[in-house]
Amino acid sequence: MATETLAKWATSLSYSDLPESVIRAAIRSFYNWVGCAIGGSLHTATTIAHSSLEPFFGSPQSSLLGSQGGMKADAQHAALLNGIASHVHDYDDTHLDTIIHPTGLVASALLAVSEWKRPVSGRDFILALVAGIEAECKLGLAVWPHHYDIGWHITSTTGSVGAAVAVGKVLGLDVVAMQHATGVAATQVTGLREMFGSHTKSFHLGRAAQNGLVAAVMAGGGFTSSLRALEAKRGWVNVVSTENRLEEVLASLGTRWEVERNAFKPFPCGIVVHPVVDGCVQARSKLADASLRIEDVEVVDVHVHPLVLELTGKTEPKDGLEGKFSVYHGAAVGLLYGKATPAEYEDFVVLDPAVIEVRRKTRATVDESLRAGECHVRLDLGDNKIFEVHVDHAVGSLQSPMSDGQLQAKFLDQCGPVLGDEGASNASDACWGLKQTQDVAGTAATL
Amino acid sequence: MATETLAKWATSLSYSDLPESVIRAAIRSFYNWVGCAIGGSLHTATTIAHSSLEPFFGSPQSSLLGSQGGMKADAQHAALLNGIASHVHDYDDTHLDTIIHPTGLVASALLAVSEWKRPVSGRDFILALVAGIEAECKLGLAVWPHHYDIGWHITSTTGSVGAAVAVGKVLGLDVVAMQHATGVAATQVTGLREMFGSHTKSFHLGRAAQNGLVAAVMAGGGFTSSLRALEAKRGWVNVVSTENRLEEVLASLGTRWEVERNAFKPFPCGIVVHPVVDGCVQARSKLADASLRIEDVEVVDVHVHPLVLELTGKTEPKDGLEGKFSVYHGAAVGLLYGKATPAEYEDFVVLDPAVIEVRRKTRATVDESLRAGECHVRLDLGDNKIFEVHVDHAVGSLQSPMSDGQLQAKFLDQCGPVLGDEGASNASDACWGLKQTQDVAGTAATL
Repeated sequence: MATETLAKWATSLSYSDLPESVIRAAIRSFYNWVGCAIGGSLHTATTIAHSSLEPFFGSPQSSLLGSQGGMKADAQHAALLNGIASHVHDYDDTHLDTIIHPTGLVASALLAVSEWKRPVSGRDFILALVAGIEAECKLGLAVWPHHYDIGWHITSTTGSVGAAVAVGKVLGLDVVAMQHATGVAATQVTGLREMFGSHTKSFHLGRAAQNGLVAAVMAGGGFTSSLRALEAKRGWVNVVSTENRLEEVLASLGTRWEVERNAFKPFPCGIVVHPVVDGCVQARSKLADASLRIEDVEVVDVHVHPLVLELTGKTEPKDGLEGKFSVYHGAAVGLLYGKATPAEYEDFVVLDPAVIEVRRKTRATVDESLRAGECHVRLDLGDNKIFEVHVDHAVGSLQSPMSDGQLQAKFLDQCGPVLGDEGASNASDACWGLKQTQDVAGTAATL
Repeated sequence: MATETLAKWATSLSYSDLPESVIRAAIRSFYNWVGCAIGGSLHTATTIAHSSLEPFFGSPQSSLLGSQGGMKADAQHAALLNGIASHVHDYDDTHLDTIIHPTGLVASALLAVSEWKRPVSGRDFILALVAGIEAECKLGLAVWPHHYDIGWHITSTTGSVGAAVAVGKVLGLDVVAMQHATGVAATQVTGLREMFGSHTKSFHLGRAAQNGLVAAVMAGGGFTSSLRALEAKRGWVNVVSTENRLEEVLASLGTRWEVERNAFKPFPCGIVVHPVVDGCVQARSKLADASLRIEDVEVVDVHVHPLVLELTGKTEPKDGLEGKFSVYHGAAVGLLYGKATPAEYEDFVVLDPAVIEVRRKTRATVDESLRAGECHVRLDLGDNKIFEVHVDHAVGSLQSPMSDGQLQAKFLDQCGPVLGDEGASNASDACWGLKQTQDVAGTAATL
């Protein structure tokens, strides 16, 4: 009954059901997503996808965020390209219990459809966004961690359903059509972890957003699927995982809100590296306070959770994308520059001899006793000179969340180079005002 | 090295490498596919998908087969819709070793691209078609049967790679780009068996064709993926199956040709039902010879391979699509009408009381000793009056293949109602002449 349970919940959810804290979390998620999508719009993954697929673009229905002159594409391609752009810097949000990056999938599909089927109000948009995020994160919780362990990119494999639920919600699908939409989305299982470190990782998000959009639109037109797509013996959960907590997890729909457990990244790299970057930024301050330089350090020792080396163990990244999967690179830029923004993941920085030198000084050791958000950084300068930092909860975690001001600084840093400072500031205002708008297409026009 | 092995083989394959028997098999596969796509163009699954997605159509690049007035869509949507149409009657081809329906995926993508990037000659088309079919069938063999058993629709899960290889071949991708295309295609794992019996089953084929097309086009534009997408620890084979014979299977590329092992369906239903239909058609003749009628039969006993009841055990199908998954319906129409064409899978036939009565007389029993292509049919008329038929190899099997004449009769039966008799005849001539054409777009224009 899980597919029906989810469809009933999503179709009957109303804006007045959303606690104020959920609305705030949704707006922050949307805001962070827009910054990431605009910031990623110039990345080669986005531009190659754009130019390759442009021959197939349909009517200009929906905005390609950050594009020159407010370029548009049909809603399907807008969902795809905005989804790619929003994830390509690995700078987007993270539902920490599943390491799903939830907003990119849902918002990419939803904004594209909202511009096509205008007007969609800010409130209806928020409502659909929440429905979609809850759907994908619950689905992720049902199969975590086995599904991820065997090699699925859990963000996109669950996200097509999230996108379908969100789009189905703004299209006003009834319960049965929402079940069919869920089925068409669920059968498109996109995302193998083997693709991490290549353009295809961000394609996963864009394509899954598009898959969900297509699913909801087709189901709205009467296309049929299984009504038990998620829970059946050969349905989604049982095929993609040996774990199955679907019923249990769906029981908390509307009481435990997953969007409130969504965190935002201060650094554009795999979330498991964040404690190390945070610790290295802190360690750099300690060095500076002692009038010492990173060149004086002989060995950088970091002790980390096992997932860190499993996911980000690249010792010699060859370009910016690979740098995101290198805890060594994260440590090096934290120590050298005291920050890790997209600029520190440019190819030329990854190949800079000074950066390579610090990476090679860095040793990462797994400590099974550490939590994923925790790490120890230890700088050894010889002659028993040691600097140590313990990170208990990395900045950007739920325990130490980014403030609205920090989110805004990140947004302006991402959007400034694309939209200009005034454009970025206008975009920021428009996004913070999401709740008040009568037509989200107006918001999109500023992006 | 499997991904590289496949890419090297596919990119270096030339027309002169193809044995005459392989060329013939490819042309027959194409011919049968065209008939199925035209025959399925009026099905509601196709028309709903068409009308739902039409708002997103781009430039009219590629033909929607069987459409009024030679309608076109962008190549992506043409691949999707022709793929859906060609499978929706479950009347297409079958690579019996894997039960993959290979041509729909590859040809749907390939024809669409050949019209967009014209001219593509008939020979280049055949070459790419063979490359794609070999790729998907080898991939299927590598994971069969576990992959299918756990719930994947093996046709579409392998077919996106087949379509990517075929499109990559006509686009002239080099080895590395072909590896990237394989990766982008492989990461889009589309098709859960739970969707069987709904519109979504045929969507699997169309979407996977489109996935492969998009993958090859993007890789051609420089989009990157893993170069080890198939064989890596978290690559395609290891994530979607516990079975892995990839290296072994690829060793026979170019020596054992899978396209030669492709069979064509005389009946538009699950291939496992074919022996029963064949047996019941024969049993009907025996009854007629004895001047008896099906009304005189008390019990119809069929003994079948275990897969028959696993896949087609629906005793009370509610519509035409469900009828395809009912061995009981296959037996009933074979006995009542002596044939099983799409007409016998119309909703009103499935709901006809006379048909229901025969279905209810039919008992299906699993016999572990039978091969999948074998069955026993036994009609019990009471008073020890018994008629028995043993089918050793059903019509349409590799041992008892459809002749070119039978294929043509099937083609004309499918295309006549859509194109008119003259149009169907012209289409038939054009398809048989595939090898000679200088521009496949010219062939497509007749379809």
